Amino acid sequence: MSFAPRIDAALHAALRQGQAAPAPAKLAAALEHAVTPGGARIRPTILLSIAAACGDPSPRLADAAAVALELMHCASLVHDDLPCFDDADVRRGKPTVHRAYSEPIAVLTGDSLIMLAFETLARAAGEDPARAVALISVLAKRSGMPGGICAGQGWESEREVDLSAYHAAKTGALFMAATEMGAIAAGQDGPQWIELGARIGEAFQVADDLRDALYDEETLGKPVGQDDLHGRPNAVSELGVEGAIQRMRDILGGAIASIPKCPGEGMLAAMVTAQAEVLTPIKWRAAQRIAGE
Amino acid sequence: MSFAPRIDAALHAALRQGQAAPAPAKLAAALEHAVTPGGARIRPTILLSIAAACGDPSPRLADAAAVALELMHCASLVHDDLPCFDDADVRRGKPTVHRAYSEPIAVLTGDSLIMLAFETLARAAGEDPARAVALISVLAKRSGMPGGICAGQGWESEREVDLSAYHAAKTGALFMAATEMGAIAAGQDGPQWIELGARIGEAFQVADDLRDALYDEETLGKPVGQDDLHGRPNAVSELGVEGAIQRMRDILGGAIASIPKCPGEGMLAAMVTAQAEVLTPIKWRAAQRIAGE
Repeated sequence: MSFAPRIDAALHAALRQGQAAPAPAKLAAALEHAVTPGGARIRPTILLSIAAACGDPSPRLADAAAVALELMHCASLVHDDLPCFDDADVRRGKPTVHRAYSEPIAVLTGDSLIMLAFETLARAAGEDPARAVALISVLAKRSGMPGGICAGQGWESEREVDLSAYHAAKTGALFMAATEMGAIAAGQDGPQWIELGARIGEAFQVADDLRDALYDEETLGKPVGQDDLHGRPNAVSELGVEGAIQRMRDILGGAIASIPKCPGEGMLAAMVTAQAEVLTPIKWRAAQRIAGE
Repeated sequence: MSFAPRIDAALHAALRQGQAAPAPAKLAAALEHAVTPGGARIRPTILLSIAAACGDPSPRLADAAAVALELMHCASLVHDDLPCFDDADVRRGKPTVHRAYSEPIAVLTGDSLIMLAFETLARAAGEDPARAVALISVLAKRSGMPGGICAGQGWESEREVDLSAYHAAKTGALFMAATEMGAIAAGQDGPQWIELGARIGEAFQVADDLRDALYDEETLGKPVGQDDLHGRPNAVSELGVEGAIQRMRDILGGAIASIPKCPGEGMLAAMVTAQAEVLTPIKWRAAQRIAGE
């Protein structure tokens, strides 16, 4: 099932909020630039998959949760690309926000997307404010300090790094948010779903390491070799390419085993299995096919 | 009535959230640095004054609202001080966050404080999630785009500036948030209180213009002459010092007239009157006393 049209419609509705009011034009354009055309939208897709697997009784709230999570992810990309972090020129095949606009506009774009994430959840509270509050709480916790993506970036300024806390916060946090928030939006218990998100996050980290090590900039749409450059830990330098791919598949097996009982359990297992294929770098999939012939 | 001890206790409780978990030490220290010792805490003081004037039936929620608002204000100061904006070395008499730590840490500190603001409100939702959602909604709107402090900064990147939208967003937004949130936390209608916040914000803007024009860096604890330097509009260059002081007093008169009926109406009027004295630069108060002798 593709959730892409549903995610894009909800994202654009969120961006249009308050558009009648006078707004600084560059910042408004930069928000659009940062959010579209978008990458794989993997986090909101996972979130909506979980909500669907739990029956999706409140689609409006699930949409808001998916949008808020994607806005938060986009905000983190804009700030991570800044000159004082990765100093990236290219993101998703087009100039980064600070290159297309300016550094002040990029800082404000990230900040504004964060505000819009929370505003979107608050607006969707409707008849169930308690559920909206639970979603806001998870999103804030998984984005901030000490357990969120801000903390993840913060670890990169430390000489002594708690590697497990670093990975959980840097990549895992928004995947844990995706599974927790999908369940909460559907009226289910959030914590039961954390492990699935954590496992998917680990697999994604390994996949990202593979892409960083194997791809060229044109294919990836962003600079490569960033881990080596910034001295960040990488599964490929630790395990080799084959070892890293095996590791990723093992993790996804664990992810499937962790799926809580729910009506759409089988669908979710299929989704996770499909991720294993998607996450394996294309070049490597081709190489495996040739080797198997 | 001084709300300072109540605000500081609640702020420190918020900063201690999740402190048992492993956290990157520099970022954790930078959050503390950005929030303490604090300036006048004027926005949370206004918020708690309004809540008190309305009977303060939910002090825990009012505390959370005050803390969230102050955290948001501190976040905006950290980002505004960055090299790509004001490039300030000093804030509240000590080094700015990017000077004391680093630019990456300063970006993350602002982001983390924003997350903590929303997390604090979500945590305090308790028995009244609808009220917490209303508070989150106002805070997000008054902080983001197009009507919040992000938009206010965003206008500074435009060639054609909508001056009324600029001032309302840049300085007014968090004062409007203060009065609205104070009322909402006390179970009252938020919109009724917006005008009071808007007027206080206008007066504060004029007072800030006066300080920027009249004070030296040592007294102010931050660089002076920033408006001239950055070509920002300033009431003193427009009206002169006496004209600007008269303007500020007129605005505060309008603020008093706008106070909605409530048990603490008289107390609030006295608070606003006291602000007129506090906001008038000390040098000028002294000069007026000498002239009057």
